[in-house]
Amino acid sequence: MELIIPFDSQGNTPMYEQIYQHIKREIRQGNLRSGSRLPSTRVLAEHLKVSRSTTQMAYEQLLSEGYIEAVPCRGYFIAAIEELVQVSEPPAGRFVTEEEAGPEGYTVDFSPRGIDLDSFPYNTWRKISKNILVDDNKALFLNGDPQGEYPLREAIRSYLHSARGVHCSPDQIIVGAGNEYLLMLLSLILGSRQVIAMENPTYKQACQVFISQGYLVVPVSMDKHGMSIDGLAACQNPEPRAAYIMPAHQHPLGIVMPVKRRQELLSWAYEKEDRYLIEDDYDSEFRYKGKPIPALQGMDRGGRVIYIGTFSQSIAPAIRISFLVLPPGLIQEYKKKAGFYASTVSRIDQNILYQFLTEGHYERHLNRMRSIYKGKHDCLMGALKAFDGDFHMAGEHAGLHVLLTHKGGWSEQELVERAAKAQVKVYGLSRYFIHPELNPPSSTVVLGYAKLKEEEILLGCRLLQEAWVS
Amino acid sequence: MELIIPFDSQGNTPMYEQIYQHIKREIRQGNLRSGSRLPSTRVLAEHLKVSRSTTQMAYEQLLSEGYIEAVPCRGYFIAAIEELVQVSEPPAGRFVTEEEAGPEGYTVDFSPRGIDLDSFPYNTWRKISKNILVDDNKALFLNGDPQGEYPLREAIRSYLHSARGVHCSPDQIIVGAGNEYLLMLLSLILGSRQVIAMENPTYKQACQVFISQGYLVVPVSMDKHGMSIDGLAACQNPEPRAAYIMPAHQHPLGIVMPVKRRQELLSWAYEKEDRYLIEDDYDSEFRYKGKPIPALQGMDRGGRVIYIGTFSQSIAPAIRISFLVLPPGLIQEYKKKAGFYASTVSRIDQNILYQFLTEGHYERHLNRMRSIYKGKHDCLMGALKAFDGDFHMAGEHAGLHVLLTHKGGWSEQELVERAAKAQVKVYGLSRYFIHPELNPPSSTVVLGYAKLKEEEILLGCRLLQEAWVS
Repeated sequence: MELIIPFDSQGNTPMYEQIYQHIKREIRQGNLRSGSRLPSTRVLAEHLKVSRSTTQMAYEQLLSEGYIEAVPCRGYFIAAIEELVQVSEPPAGRFVTEEEAGPEGYTVDFSPRGIDLDSFPYNTWRKISKNILVDDNKALFLNGDPQGEYPLREAIRSYLHSARGVHCSPDQIIVGAGNEYLLMLLSLILGSRQVIAMENPTYKQACQVFISQGYLVVPVSMDKHGMSIDGLAACQNPEPRAAYIMPAHQHPLGIVMPVKRRQELLSWAYEKEDRYLIEDDYDSEFRYKGKPIPALQGMDRGGRVIYIGTFSQSIAPAIRISFLVLPPGLIQEYKKKAGFYASTVSRIDQNILYQFLTEGHYERHLNRMRSIYKGKHDCLMGALKAFDGDFHMAGEHAGLHVLLTHKGGWSEQELVERAAKAQVKVYGLSRYFIHPELNPPSSTVVLGYAKLKEEEILLGCRLLQEAWVS
Repeated sequence: MELIIPFDSQGNTPMYEQIYQHIKREIRQGNLRSGSRLPSTRVLAEHLKVSRSTTQMAYEQLLSEGYIEAVPCRGYFIAAIEELVQVSEPPAGRFVTEEEAGPEGYTVDFSPRGIDLDSFPYNTWRKISKNILVDDNKALFLNGDPQGEYPLREAIRSYLHSARGVHCSPDQIIVGAGNEYLLMLLSLILGSRQVIAMENPTYKQACQVFISQGYLVVPVSMDKHGMSIDGLAACQNPEPRAAYIMPAHQHPLGIVMPVKRRQELLSWAYEKEDRYLIEDDYDSEFRYKGKPIPALQGMDRGGRVIYIGTFSQSIAPAIRISFLVLPPGLIQEYKKKAGFYASTVSRIDQNILYQFLTEGHYERHLNRMRSIYKGKHDCLMGALKAFDGDFHMAGEHAGLHVLLTHKGGWSEQELVERAAKAQVKVYGLSRYFIHPELNPPSSTVVLGYAKLKEEEILLGCRLLQEAWVS
C-alpha cells in the first residue's frame, strides 16, 4: 500500500497531525479497507521524507483511537470499521494548540501570540544538545541546584547586565519553567493573601496566577505614560504590597514607559517598607525606534524591583525557561519559604541554553530576529498608512503587535466582525481588561504580526481596508 | 602552559568542577602566576579528553569569580592575585548538590537519595534527541497542550495500565516538571486551606509543599501495614479532605501496603463526598519479593484516588517529568482553576520521553535497573546477615533503601555518630518525621544503596559492623 499524503507545508499543522488526519479520513471514507496492512513507520517515513518519530506519533494516535491495530511481528492493520463504535472526534486542542491550528477559515490571522519560528537555529540547537549528551557529563542527569545551575545564572546575569542594564548577582536569579511557575513561586515568597496592583488592561495570565494564589488584584488605569500614578496612590484600602508593570512594552497597550514615570513608580515603592515593583520585561528585546531604555531594575537603588524575564518569547515558546531576579532582601525569604522546591527545568536544558548564551548564539539570534521583525513591522506600518484617516495607531515603537482605534467610534466588536467577514482575524482590546464589564466600550483592536509573512501582512491589510475603510 | 589535572573518575564530582577547583587551587597557591596565559578551552578539552563544554564551564566559573580574565582575540589569562580582594569560597551547593558532593570525608555514604546513573542509556537518549530536533518538527518549538502532549499522555496511560494496573484515560493525566510542581497544582485544584492527613514519618518535601500552600498537615501514625486506620479515623477536628499515602513502598519505612489496608483506606475515602486519597507511587518500579501489587488507583471504583508518579526516580533525576492522574471529577476543577497554567515541560523533552516509552527503551531500562538494583540489594542483604543479632531489618522487599533498628535501644544519634567515626554515613529516621520532637526517640537508621557499587556496600557494611556490632 502506498500512501500519498497531500502535505500542507505552508500551514502550521504538524506533519504527524497531517498524516494522522489523512489516514483517519481515508479509513472513514472507506478508501482504506479493514484488514489491509499499513506500511511500517520506517517505510512510510522514508517515503514521505519525514523523520520516523513523525510517522510513529501519527500511528500511535491512530492506534489509541482504534482506527488501526498492531499485530506483533506483522505490522499495522486497518481495524474493522464497523467495530469502531462511536469514535468521537479528538477534543479541540488535542494535537494542535490555538497558535498551530491556523486561521480556522481565516485568510489572515493577526494573532498577537506566537513568534516567527522559521529562523530558529535548529542546527545550532541540535548540535549543542548532541555535545551535551555525552558520557562525561553524567552529572547533568543528577538533580541540580533548586535556583538553577550557577553557570547559567551567571550567563543570564551577564546578558541582563549588558543588554538590559540589570544589576544583580547570580545569587539573586531563580530559573524556572515559565513565567507562570515563577509567579507561583513569587506568591509563596511574598506570602499569602497579598494585594497586587496591576495595569489595566494587562497580561491576563499573570492576573489569573495571582488570583489563583488567593491574591487580591487591584486594577489601576493607564495613562499615556503607563500605570497611572494617581490611580496607584489612590489604592488605599486595601493598600497594594506590589505593583505589576511592563515598562519595556506594555502588554497589550504597547506603551514604552518614560523614565519619569519609572522614577515615580520607584518613589511609590520607596514610600513604605516592603513595597515592591514587579517588572515584567516583556518584549524588551524588540524595539524599533529610539534608544533602548534599560530595565527599571537598573534604576532601583533600594532593592524594591522584582524582575521577571523569559526565553520563551525570544527563543521559542517550547523553551520553558524563565527567570526571576529578586532583590537581595527577598532572597532569604525565597530560601526559607520556597528553597526546597526542586528546579523545574532539567539540567540538560539549562546547559543547552547556557551554551546558546555563552557561545554568542543568542545574541546572533536576537539580531537576526530584530531585523526580521523590523521588516515585518515596517511592512505593516506602510500598509496601515491607508488607515490614517479612520484610525489612531499605538504601540508601534516596540514589540510584536500594534493597536488600532477607530476614530468614528465603531465598537471593537463591530471591527472584529467586519474583519471576520473579510476572512481576517483581529483581536478586541477588551479581552485584556481585568474587569471588562466596568470599562467603557472599546473601539480598539490588536494586530500581531510576528508569525505572518510579509505577503500575508499586505493581504490582511488590503482585506481590512475593504472591510473598515472603503 | 600544560595543565595536568588529577581527575577523580570514581567520585561523583563533575569534570568541570574538578578542572575549576584545580586551576583555582593552583592560582591561590601561586603555582599559576598572574598574567600567564591559559590554554584555550579547545586545546584543554583535547588535552584532557573531555568535551569542550566541560572546559568552557570551568573557565566561565573562574571568570565569574575573577581568577582569570578574558582578553579578546588573545585568550584567557591568570588575574593578578593581589587584586583578588576577598574572593569568597563559592557557597555550598554552588556547583555541586548534596548527591554529587561525594561522601565529604566519608568512605561510604549510604545516601537514601540518588540513583545509579552508570547504566543510563546515554546513547539512546542522545539519538532520540537528535532525531527529534529536525526541521520538520518545527511545531515542537511552539507552545503545547497545558496538560502535556496527548501522545505522551497516551503512552503514560498505556504504561500505567500494563505495569501498574492504573485505569484512566489520557484526559485524566497532567504532565508537569516534578512532583513538587504537580503538588502545587493539586493544591490549587483542591482549593485553599485544606487539611491533609500524611503518614508519619513521610516524604518531607511533599509535606513542605502542602504547608507552603497554606494547608494544614495532620500527621497520622503508622502500623506495620501502613497508615493507621484508627489514627486516620480519629482525625475529626479538623477532618482531613485527603490522605497522602505511599502504598508501593512507603518512604521512609519501606512498608508495602497489603490489599486489606488499601481497601480500608478506600472505604474511608468513600465515607464522605469529595474525600480523596493521594497515592504517591514512589519506588513502585523496584520490587524484589513476591508479585508486584497493582496501584491502589486500579482498585478505586469511586473516582477518589489521585495518583502521582515520576520519571525522575526511574530514569534520572534531571528528567524533570512527573505526572498526576486525576479522577474524572477533578478534571473539571483542574480546567477551571489551573487550566491556564502553561505546561512546565518543554515539548521537546516530552517528545524525547514519548519516544523513549513507545520504542520500548523504558521497559528495557527498567528491566536492566531492576536486575542491577536486585544485585545490590542481595549484596547488602548478605552483608547485613552479620547484624541479625543486634538489629531488626525492615523495608527490604522493595525500593532502594532498608531500615535497621538497634535491638539494644541505642539512639539513632549514637548509631549515626559511631558510623561517622568509621567514615560511614547513615541517616537517622527522625529526619522524616513531621514533628520529630513529638515522637519517641528513634533507634533506627536508613541505608540507601542505589548509588553504591557492590564493593562499596561490602566495605560499608564491614566498617559498620566494627562500629556497631563487634
